[in-house]
Formats: sequence, C-alpha cells, structure tokens
Amino acid sequence: MIGIDWGTSSLRAYRFARDGKVAAHRYTPRGILTVPPDGFPGTLRAVVGDWIADGEDRVLMCGMVGSRQGWREAPYLPCPAGLDGLAGAAIPIPFDGATVQVLPGLTCRDRHGVPEVMRGEETQILGAARDGAEMTVCLPGSHSKWARVKDGSVLGFTTHFTGEAFAVLSSHTILARMMDTAAPHHAGGFARGLARARQGGGLLHHLFGLRAAALFDEMQEDEAASTLSGLLIGHEVAAALEDGVAPPVLLIGADHLAARYAAALDIFGVPHRLAEPDAAARGLWRVAEHLP
Amino acid sequence: MIGIDWGTSSLRAYRFARDGKVAAHRYTPRGILTVPPDGFPGTLRAVVGDWIADGEDRVLMCGMVGSRQGWREAPYLPCPAGLDGLAGAAIPIPFDGATVQVLPGLTCRDRHGVPEVMRGEETQILGAARDGAEMTVCLPGSHSKWARVKDGSVLGFTTHFTGEAFAVLSSHTILARMMDTAAPHHAGGFARGLARARQGGGLLHHLFGLRAAALFDEMQEDEAASTLSGLLIGHEVAAALEDGVAPPVLLIGADHLAARYAAALDIFGVPHRLAEPDAAARGLWRVAEHLP
Repeated sequence: MIGIDWGTSSLRAYRFARDGKVAAHRYTPRGILTVPPDGFPGTLRAVVGDWIADGEDRVLMCGMVGSRQGWREAPYLPCPAGLDGLAGAAIPIPFDGATVQVLPGLTCRDRHGVPEVMRGEETQILGAARDGAEMTVCLPGSHSKWARVKDGSVLGFTTHFTGEAFAVLSSHTILARMMDTAAPHHAGGFARGLARARQGGGLLHHLFGLRAAALFDEMQEDEAASTLSGLLIGHEVAAALEDGVAPPVLLIGADHLAARYAAALDIFGVPHRLAEPDAAARGLWRVAEHLP
Repeated sequence: MIGIDWGTSSLRAYRFARDGKVAAHRYTPRGILTVPPDGFPGTLRAVVGDWIADGEDRVLMCGMVGSRQGWREAPYLPCPAGLDGLAGAAIPIPFDGATVQVLPGLTCRDRHGVPEVMRGEETQILGAARDGAEMTVCLPGSHSKWARVKDGSVLGFTTHFTGEAFAVLSSHTILARMMDTAAPHHAGGFARGLARARQGGGLLHHLFGLRAAALFDEMQEDEAASTLSGLLIGHEVAAALEDGVAPPVLLIGADHLAARYAAALDIFGVPHRLAEPDAAARGLWRVAEHLP
C-alpha cells in the first residue's frame, strides 16, 4: 500500500510493509500549488511510479489534493467522523492500473454556528491519537487546529489564524521595521510575548505595545519577532483553553513549532506530550484498514 | 497665529483670527514621509509663506513633524499632561523671521508597564474635550487611541493596532482572495463582524471563520471586507470597554470611520457623540494661549 500526504506546499509518500510499518519514504516540494490542473497524474507517476510498477496497486491520498484546487474534490465530511467515515467517503480516481483514492477533509460548526474546515490534519490526528477517552490534539501552523478526539473519532475542532497572522504582521506592517525575522529564536522574547498575552487589553492593543516598546529601546531587534510569536501563540492557547481541553494535550507538528506550543502550555500549567513523527503515515495506514 | 497639523501623510494649516476662529485653511498631501530631511523649511514656506509675509509671526505645529523622522524631535511628554504642559514643552525652531514651535507627543504606561505613545492626537483631544469631569475620547485610525481626559488634561490612553491590522489582513493573507476591498461599506456585513467579536473564541479564531464561511458560500465577496472591519473594531471596542470608559464616548475622526465606531458603541450599548470638525485647529489655538 502507498500513502500520500499531498498538501499545499509539499508531498510526502510512504510505502508500507504488510505489517503497516513504513518501508520507504519520499519527500518532494511539489505541493498542489506547484502542480498545473492537468499535472496531478504525471506528478504522482514521477514520485511513486516505480513503486506501482513494482506491484503496489493501492494508493491512498489525503490533504489539499482533495480540495477544489487539487486533483479531485472530496467534499468535507461532517464531524463527528472517524476511520470508517473517512474510508467510506474516499473518492476513487482512475489512474494507470492502480486503485487510487483521495480522502475528504472534515468540517464542523463552532457553538455559534460558524463553519470550520480541515484537510489532511484529520489523517494526522487519527494516526496519532490512541483510541479511548476524550483527548485534545493541537496541530500548530499557519492555521492551527485544536481537535477533540474520542475513540478514534474527531468530535469537533477549532482553527486559529496564528501562523498566517504572524507572517503578515512581521513582514507587512510597521512592526516589520523593528524586528529581525532572520534572528534565531529568542526564548526570553518568546516568554515575554506569552506573558503579555495573559494580561488584559486585547491582542490589537498588545500589538501596538511592541511598537511603542521599540521606540523606547525596551524591545530589541533580535527579540521582537520571538516576542510577536509568543504574543500570538499565547492568545491562541488562552482562547483554546477557554474553550476547554482534555489534557494532556497531544502536539503534532515540526519540532521547533511544537516546542513553542509546549512552552506556551507550560506557562498556562497545562500538561502536554509530543506525538511521534509521521502521524500522517500512521493515519493513512489506519484508514486504509477500514476501506471497503 | 498659524497652526499646523503635520502628520505622516498630510499637512493641514490654519490661519487664526484674533478671536481664535479659523480665518483660512489649507491642505496638502505633503506629510512628513514625502519630505526629505532638509525639505521641511521649504515645505512650510511653500504652504504658509504668504501668510507669514502678511504679518503672521507665530507658527505652532503638532504631529509627526516633531518625531525623530520629522523636522525637529520634541520628546514625548509623560501623562497626565494638559495645555500648560504641552505649551511648556514646545521646541522652538529658527525659521525666517517667525517664531516657529513644535509640540511634543504624549506617553504613558498601561497598568502592566508597557509604554504608549501618541503624536498629534493629544492636540485634537484637548481641542475637542471640554474641561470638567472625566471623559473618554476615541480616535479611530491605523493606530486607534482611547484617551481618558479630565479638566483639560490627558490622564492616560491606550492604542489598538486595528486599522493597520485591517490593511494587511485584507490585502496580504488568504482572506484577501475572498473579499472585494473596493466594494462599498456593507452595513449587514459590518454588523455581522461586530456580533462575532462579542462571541468567545478569540480574534485569531474569528479570522479563520471568515475564510471557512466563504468556502461554504456563507460569506459573499461584497460583504467580507466590511465583516472583517466589524470584527476588528468589535474586538477593539470590547477591549476598550473592559478597560473602562466614561460615557458618552467622544469620537474624533473622519465621518465614515467615526460612523463605524458609533455603530459599534451602539451594539455595546455605550452612549457616544461626535466631536465637531477641526479638533486639531481648536487644540492648536488652545495650546497657543498657554505659550509662555
């Protein structure tokens, strides 16, 4: 079996042994944004064509490849949804001699009726979360996700615009002039931003405070970007905790980003643990076991 | 007497009659960002040289012209500060035969010790606020100000990054793709954003909700920018009210922007009134009366 996690900016391919272990792993930056509308079959062939020729006749894909901008749209599946639901909603795509299927993303509504979406994260979540009691899973990123999971099913989730807000605030506002975004992570600045997020006044007020502190030489160029990061992550974590979480929070993400969220959760006194790597691979394997 | 409100992006000049009424008024887009370091005397001469030649020998300036990037730096004056304080801290600038002076901005600390700054707004505030009991003055903008004023003195103030956050979110993020920023103000969308701001979940979560709603055709291109505006202004007003205000809130600003803040304050049930135009002119005149 071949599993593909095909996102906006990258593609990860996994070749599974019969026992579900990852036998081989390939990475390419050919995310869906780099692929022309008719270029998906050729891209897949280029990445895993030899595995298919070698006898792998099942390919399961998750991520933005199933979006309207991807290869074939797989409509969002409403929560609660688990392995059976995802497997049952997989969309088949004719492809050479193999059985290629693309998984849907998930959707839910927050308690005020506003919609939520994820695509790809659901597979990571179900790959990382153990069956059993309710738990909270956090996936930091451009659009960070906080999901409630129980017995192999995603009950619901909440998205925060944190990573994208950081990107534009640090590069396109007056704050950009006071920060060196190429500076290494500054733990003191990050902690300062987290502490600020816990004070009243609101995020929009806190953002201006960075600028004013720099004017009075109370914020240095090498710490400012980390302080902004801590401020935004702190506001995200505070909002997520207000929503309610079931600790320990399971963190899924690149090490450097997960470490920042771990530091934030420490400040808020919330237990957490880091998921093992390749959650998407394990999720793809688990869903494949439930395919009809 | 000549009063000059010289900001980042524009210059407004007022010629006062002996009784303090504005006898003539000039506007030019030659804000300090358009003026080279040695170009300030020439710019002032081009705008009001004929008034000076006509016998006006006193020029009082406020705004970013007194910043480090302006003509001559007038260091921030700590709050509380009023007409006497501003007048006493005016910095003289040699200029042809006239007495030219530039006023400082104000600074304070919020209750957590984080610095605040304003430059130009203090003159508008003292021009618009009546002496007497404590009141709250709000100046919407790129960096919105909420000031507490009493007996002709600014006690303290808070800044929110609202206007600048709107500018970058609406033009440099994934939200930009779903909104027509050239569409006229959409009152329904604006109210929707305000209502959303009053719900829990945090600003970063609310921002992603705009994106998700558009994906499900629950947010149209012509209302999305107004909804984002309502969302940000709603978060600002909520934070300001949590800080505490003394109603009626006095709004100083361009009509279209003041109207949005008036609508927001209505939603929150807070009385407000709109300041008369040319608050800066009245402030310059009032400070001039206190010059040594």
